Amino acid sequence: MLFKKVKSEGLAHFSYIVGDQTEAAVIDPRRDIDIYLEIAKKEGMKIKYIFETHRNEDYIIGSRALAKRSNAEIFHADGELDYQYGQLVEADKDYQIGRLKIEALHTPGHTKGSHSYLLKDYDQNPWMLFSGDILFAGDVGRIDFYGEDNIPKIAALLYDSLYNKILPLGEEVILCPAHGAGSVCGSQIADRELTTIGIEKRSNPYLQFQSKDDFINEVGKTEAKPKYFETMEAANLNPASAKNAPFIPALSPKEFEKEMKKEDTVVIDIRSDSDYAASHIPDSVFLWEDILSGFVGWFLENNKRILLVNNGDYPEKAVSYLFRMGFENLVGYLARGMLSWHMAAKSTESTAIINVAQLCNLLDTRAEAEYLLLDIRKEEEKEEEGYIDGALEIPLTVLQANLVKYAEEIDRGGEIYIFCGSGMRSMTAASLLENKVENKVKVVLGGLNAWSSTSCPIKIEE
Amino acid sequence: MLFKKVKSEGLAHFSYIVGDQTEAAVIDPRRDIDIYLEIAKKEGMKIKYIFETHRNEDYIIGSRALAKRSNAEIFHADGELDYQYGQLVEADKDYQIGRLKIEALHTPGHTKGSHSYLLKDYDQNPWMLFSGDILFAGDVGRIDFYGEDNIPKIAALLYDSLYNKILPLGEEVILCPAHGAGSVCGSQIADRELTTIGIEKRSNPYLQFQSKDDFINEVGKTEAKPKYFETMEAANLNPASAKNAPFIPALSPKEFEKEMKKEDTVVIDIRSDSDYAASHIPDSVFLWEDILSGFVGWFLENNKRILLVNNGDYPEKAVSYLFRMGFENLVGYLARGMLSWHMAAKSTESTAIINVAQLCNLLDTRAEAEYLLLDIRKEEEKEEEGYIDGALEIPLTVLQANLVKYAEEIDRGGEIYIFCGSGMRSMTAASLLENKVENKVKVVLGGLNAWSSTSCPIKIEE
Amino acid sequence: MLFKKVKSEGLAHFSYIVGDQTEAAVIDPRRDIDIYLEIAKKEGMKIKYIFETHRNEDYIIGSRALAKRSNAEIFHADGELDYQYGQLVEADKDYQIGRLKIEALHTPGHTKGSHSYLLKDYDQNPWMLFSGDILFAGDVGRIDFYGEDNIPKIAALLYDSLYNKILPLGEEVILCPAHGAGSVCGSQIADRELTTIGIEKRSNPYLQFQSKDDFINEVGKTEAKPKYFETMEAANLNPASAKNAPFIPALSPKEFEKEMKKEDTVVIDIRSDSDYAASHIPDSVFLWEDILSGFVGWFLENNKRILLVNNGDYPEKAVSYLFRMGFENLVGYLARGMLSWHMAAKSTESTAIINVAQLCNLLDTRAEAEYLLLDIRKEEEKEEEGYIDGALEIPLTVLQANLVKYAEEIDRGGEIYIFCGSGMRSMTAASLLENKVENKVKVVLGGLNAWSSTSCPIKIEE
Amino acid sequence: MLFKKVKSEGLAHFSYIVGDQTEAAVIDPRRDIDIYLEIAKKEGMKIKYIFETHRNEDYIIGSRALAKRSNAEIFHADGELDYQYGQLVEADKDYQIGRLKIEALHTPGHTKGSHSYLLKDYDQNPWMLFSGDILFAGDVGRIDFYGEDNIPKIAALLYDSLYNKILPLGEEVILCPAHGAGSVCGSQIADRELTTIGIEKRSNPYLQFQSKDDFINEVGKTEAKPKYFETMEAANLNPASAKNAPFIPALSPKEFEKEMKKEDTVVIDIRSDSDYAASHIPDSVFLWEDILSGFVGWFLENNKRILLVNNGDYPEKAVSYLFRMGFENLVGYLARGMLSWHMAAKSTESTAIINVAQLCNLLDTRAEAEYLLLDIRKEEEKEEEGYIDGALEIPLTVLQANLVKYAEEIDRGGEIYIFCGSGMRSMTAASLLENKVENKVKVVLGGLNAWSSTSCPIKIEE
Repeated sequence: MLFKKVKSEGLAHFSYIVGDQTEAAVIDPRRDIDIYLEIAKKEGMKIKYIFETHRNEDYIIGSRALAKRSNAEIFHADGELDYQYGQLVEADKDYQIGRLKIEALHTPGHTKGSHSYLLKDYDQNPWMLFSGDILFAGDVGRIDFYGEDNIPKIAALLYDSLYNKILPLGEEVILCPAHGAGSVCGSQIADRELTTIGIEKRSNPYLQFQSKDDFINEVGKTEAKPKYFETMEAANLNPASAKNAPFIPALSPKEFEKEMKKEDTVVIDIRSDSDYAASHIPDSVFLWEDILSGFVGWFLENNKRILLVNNGDYPEKAVSYLFRMGFENLVGYLARGMLSWHMAAKSTESTAIINVAQLCNLLDTRAEAEYLLLDIRKEEEKEEEGYIDGALEIPLTVLQANLVKYAEEIDRGGEIYIFCGSGMRSMTAASLLENKVENKVKVVLGGLNAWSSTSCPIKIEE
Repeated sequence: MLFKKVKSEGLAHFSYIVGDQTEAAVIDPRRDIDIYLEIAKKEGMKIKYIFETHRNEDYIIGSRALAKRSNAEIFHADGELDYQYGQLVEADKDYQIGRLKIEALHTPGHTKGSHSYLLKDYDQNPWMLFSGDILFAGDVGRIDFYGEDNIPKIAALLYDSLYNKILPLGEEVILCPAHGAGSVCGSQIADRELTTIGIEKRSNPYLQFQSKDDFINEVGKTEAKPKYFETMEAANLNPASAKNAPFIPALSPKEFEKEMKKEDTVVIDIRSDSDYAASHIPDSVFLWEDILSGFVGWFLENNKRILLVNNGDYPEKAVSYLFRMGFENLVGYLARGMLSWHMAAKSTESTAIINVAQLCNLLDTRAEAEYLLLDIRKEEEKEEEGYIDGALEIPLTVLQANLVKYAEEIDRGGEIYIFCGSGMRSMTAASLLENKVENKVKVVLGGLNAWSSTSCPIKIEE
Repeated sequence: MLFKKVKSEGLAHFSYIVGDQTEAAVIDPRRDIDIYLEIAKKEGMKIKYIFETHRNEDYIIGSRALAKRSNAEIFHADGELDYQYGQLVEADKDYQIGRLKIEALHTPGHTKGSHSYLLKDYDQNPWMLFSGDILFAGDVGRIDFYGEDNIPKIAALLYDSLYNKILPLGEEVILCPAHGAGSVCGSQIADRELTTIGIEKRSNPYLQFQSKDDFINEVGKTEAKPKYFETMEAANLNPASAKNAPFIPALSPKEFEKEMKKEDTVVIDIRSDSDYAASHIPDSVFLWEDILSGFVGWFLENNKRILLVNNGDYPEKAVSYLFRMGFENLVGYLARGMLSWHMAAKSTESTAIINVAQLCNLLDTRAEAEYLLLDIRKEEEKEEEGYIDGALEIPLTVLQANLVKYAEEIDRGGEIYIFCGSGMRSMTAASLLENKVENKVKVVLGGLNAWSSTSCPIKIEE
Repeated sequence: MLFKKVKSEGLAHFSYIVGDQTEAAVIDPRRDIDIYLEIAKKEGMKIKYIFETHRNEDYIIGSRALAKRSNAEIFHADGELDYQYGQLVEADKDYQIGRLKIEALHTPGHTKGSHSYLLKDYDQNPWMLFSGDILFAGDVGRIDFYGEDNIPKIAALLYDSLYNKILPLGEEVILCPAHGAGSVCGSQIADRELTTIGIEKRSNPYLQFQSKDDFINEVGKTEAKPKYFETMEAANLNPASAKNAPFIPALSPKEFEKEMKKEDTVVIDIRSDSDYAASHIPDSVFLWEDILSGFVGWFLENNKRILLVNNGDYPEKAVSYLFRMGFENLVGYLARGMLSWHMAAKSTESTAIINVAQLCNLLDTRAEAEYLLLDIRKEEEKEEEGYIDGALEIPLTVLQANLVKYAEEIDRGGEIYIFCGSGMRSMTAASLLENKVENKVKVVLGGLNAWSSTSCPIKIEE
């Protein structure tokens, strides 16, 4: 019997391949689909079915590309959408995989068409549930895709799916969601490598409600959405049938500079925060490789020409992250990294940094009017990890959109100290602000984590 | 959070590595330990603890080798044994791994000292149980290591461990046993890639008993043990501290022949059954690579000099299988396989095969006294898959030991038709008999599976 | 500086990637082009140029597929052909790769348009010559593509290219030909992993001639051509722009049998000779994986539906070999190999084998009229390795075509003993004859190599 | 036939494995020997011989470790040394590898015992020469190991080996030296991936001499030697028999800090120059991974406890580089890199950087007495690439040793601007100076390469 979870880092997306004897099925394949073929080869199987749990917003689905290569049948999950491929899955029907069966369960709530897939064992007992974006470890799917007005209605659907369809399957059933901790699809997803319905029943805050009304009141909230969600939604009605991740060339400083100057081009620097701080290409955006997937979709349109700066190795990870999210216009990367840029005496800029000891000291001695503390973390982080009194709070994802709104605070003169949890996102914020504000921006290295390790004053909400 | 199951095929052994933040623990490491180091490297962790669930009989434990490389602390599980390394684990104590805890539970029943290890989540709730050889998917550990007289006593310990310690942990807890389907440690282990205590409670036949007495009566049975179990038991009190799997040279036919003639040497042919049937080196033992681990320990002493015959590729899998079981005296393999042997005009033999259509036909037309049907399958297989009337039944693992006992039947003249499930084990039986019986031996290709696919008469026990 | 030889086994094809600083060029890319991209990634380079030495007959060129992925410029080599891609290379012009230069030399003789490419070092000195199919280690390219009448004319071109263009480059120049030993493009190519113009001048029999006329007289000969050469020639004017090697599914015996029965389907058994001998699917053609590339093009049209039988692992090597040669209609392979076929009691056949001791014995005692010795080796092998007196000689590649011509000999009754060098090709011959001749066919295991190892009578031509 | 060059980056060391049929030989194996075993496995060969060209000074030879695993015979090359393993190779004798022969040629000149190994083809003709440290592409071995007085004598030996033994082998012979560009064993080694005796005869400056005396006068020079050469020399008389590269644990900031404080511990920061500049652990030495092998042996004793700082990935490359050079006391690396250090609010320092535009500007406007330009490049670089007037010249490798000598210049007050070719070595110099000089140290980003790209004044020696 075959069971493999395929983790796509960056997006924190989980897809699955299950099989028995010579037949396998893939649930929610990602765009770079070779990994499923490799697993099928190793196991000596064909890929018979591809099941989608819902129409995705955060990445390009690989169903069509995989079907093209494997001849598998595709089943999508939403009868109301105008899909240009595959067929609608049939709820409550069993699909055979060797001696196993997979049953599609209609579990609306994240989207109206969402389905979960229940794998049954040789004796027809429930074994695993592929829950898509309905139920995660420690979290549930967002319910605001149909507008604020519809939230109570959608929340009610979600309640029914969770409490009346999924929980009754049994505590012993293994739960296989479509995302793990770090996804843009659920900000509170727990770092639980394996979970069961019983564990979620015990630990997931959204499965502790006594009444449907309480659930609906609590779960309803609107979150901001990255720009690229709409592009993905459209793309996933008619995804590319088969395409490899692009190969991008190494560019000499001269070639790189030439490409930089073309219209609609953005330079993304995926090195570390201190590397960027010391010296970077003017106007480049800092997006450390590990946070690239989480943030690039907020700032960038899919059609932008992208140039990458790293340490000079081929940026395999960044290319696949961007490819999965539909960013394909990748022009090249700087050969040998900034070393070659420096050796060519091309122009650079630096970003000021400050450590918490220095900052803490400085706050003691300086009048509040002379500086601005800018906290770019999410609301949840402040609740959990505390905050520094007096800071202006604008989450990184909406920073650009709010510059006008907070113009007065930001532009009043004095230095701006930006902090997040670690310093990484602050460096992104600094790279976005650098050419837009007049004040001197400084990134707080180590962020609130560092701050908490010292005796500097911190507040925790109660 | 890190969780990885390391499957060692052949032995169907599962070891595990779990970790959090920068700390990891390994449960029951196998002998070729590089895989744990590679995982730790990839995750950016140190290996802090090594936990053994019990003293193993079927493979060389890698604890000491892993500790030597990683500086981890070793905890073994049996206070009554004279271990030359590590320290005794402390039951009911929590061992910290990052923010997680592992608690050792004394769960005797397979061996007296057996422990299971309970992983607890960030909130101290039970999450996963590493159950060693106490509880498998669909099976429980064997209880006959202390002699037939002690079986009821040991069975009672096992009952208490299962019903009073493990089941109460909760249906939602994920179960991680030390073996999967195909192990010599449990003949009925189910092919369940992932399971939970709840799933076992529902489906494991040994967890369905209403009374302890019923359990004891039913679970008690003595199985034959492979020769090498005793060697492993001794070796595991003082396992080699660090050693790589041997590199074995390719030997030309001339060199191979020279090595063959040395004392205490055995030639093992790991090709397919039909390859062996057509042409093999005289006196070589047939043990198809995929069944090597399951059977070599029954026929061979650990100190034998071993020569391998395959298709000419480096026999990586066979070498690692043998290394894990303590067979280290690997002299070499035949360069370019039998092709070079044939080209050198070295002597060969063949083994006769017969297909089921021919056999079925033949049984119809020939008197019973003129032939012998030899069924070398295990008792359980006969119960499940049926049998052919009139066959002499001697399981392969005890075939050699029983040749004298059944001398009359075997040597009465006429052809001997050997069958198993598929033909593979029959070919091993034929290779063992070939020089010991006078009658012509023929292997039934496809075995009982093929037989069942035809209209030839078959019986199923009820 | 980057230099890598990419060996494509099976075809014994060599392609090359060379580079300097951030620029690389590929010479004669094969169809599965990921390997060049991987090298460029590792080295931090772009692929700037693709150079073809000539229009190939034995495999699908990967130029267009590689250009699609890398944006490289393609230069092909024959102004007279109607290419649908790329541009004609300019002879005697330097193409820049970093600080290195590549000069195209017009070296007709294999084809009229053939070019060699001379890599020059930082000081403009000749360094390496990429000689395509003009000059190999120990051999030269075939000259019979323009019909028998044109051979003297083409031979004269070849002479000039070799003696007047290539040899004068200098003995120290490293020679990089497009094929190594085992290629269908040169039967006498030497097993020299690295060579130089000086080494060839010393050792290559075709570079030892004192006069052009002697060269022309000696080099001129017509060899038979595999069926698929014409298909390749047409395909290479307009090769597919980008395509991955097919993924083929594992088929259960039932599915396999169903596919077998469809029209235009051929079953190719790529296991070992003895595996095939013991038991194979009726009507399957034996083509051991290692000789697949050398012979499949002789027997099979490119549009046939192909089913593969091996040991059950994914037939990666065979699939890539077939893909490179333009065979794409790969339907599937037998899941778990013949084991599953036997277990399903599907029908099988066997092929008789005989070892040389038995054969030698038998020839002594039996009248010549009672049997036929069939030698299927090439002429050159007989010259070098000797032959058995009285054997009928028909090379394997033309066996099918000559069955009518030799009908009398072949069908006169008695057994037919087929031999080659090792037994492998004989098994192919047997699989081709099996249903076409009435006599009993037996394959001589070990072939003439085995025969020579015994005291059986052998003749060597002088 | 097998030929593979194994490149060990960092040391720019080349070892070779050659083989034929089932036999292979390895020339100058490196310490991490698995790579030779893997090649032998893939080729289906045994390793029969290990040949050493001379006693090495720059890395631990892997002969004994490889012999332990493979049962190969070891031949070393110097009858005057007290080797504790292997046997002395016999000059002018042929050693058989399949159908090939390897002849040992006594070629003294780098060391007195140096041998080259000549591979002969199937016809006994010279094919390849494994020349050890006698002859490189573009360079010859250093001759100062026996003291300054002996240089003329050793140079004469070298002359004879080159001009009377190696050149006469023939221009067509392929040359396989033990080092490539970037080695500490030859500062002018050319970046020629493949070369021949003929190419060297044409292009190597040391093969252009008309008289022996001229050669001796020109070639004789003494270079400084890294500290660790003596340790290697001693170690290579009795190298460890078999050992894997160490596995080193990830350390949390707290653990790392604890280890740092222990005696004889050094923290090596292998990140990029700008990463280090922005923020590093106080007292850490900067040695970018790519220059680690070239410089660590100058600064560090082999017995030091080493802690590594990188970006948080396992420092595989650095660990293997250090292991090859005999540095084994590797304590650990900082988990998650400086990010975790910052988050833990541990203390950091930064190093000032300056770009060439700023520097050029500044030199114009400031009096010479106010600053110091420190050029840490090698003499050869100044000759080839030019220099800035007025700079104090102290090569990096002898910087520490010369601090007292140049105390006056260095400590006279004002800023110190350090430059090399690119900025990387300057950062190392800065990290070494930082706690030893009072003046403010600034690293010139891009170094002389950047300087040359601008219009700042530069001088080239003529």
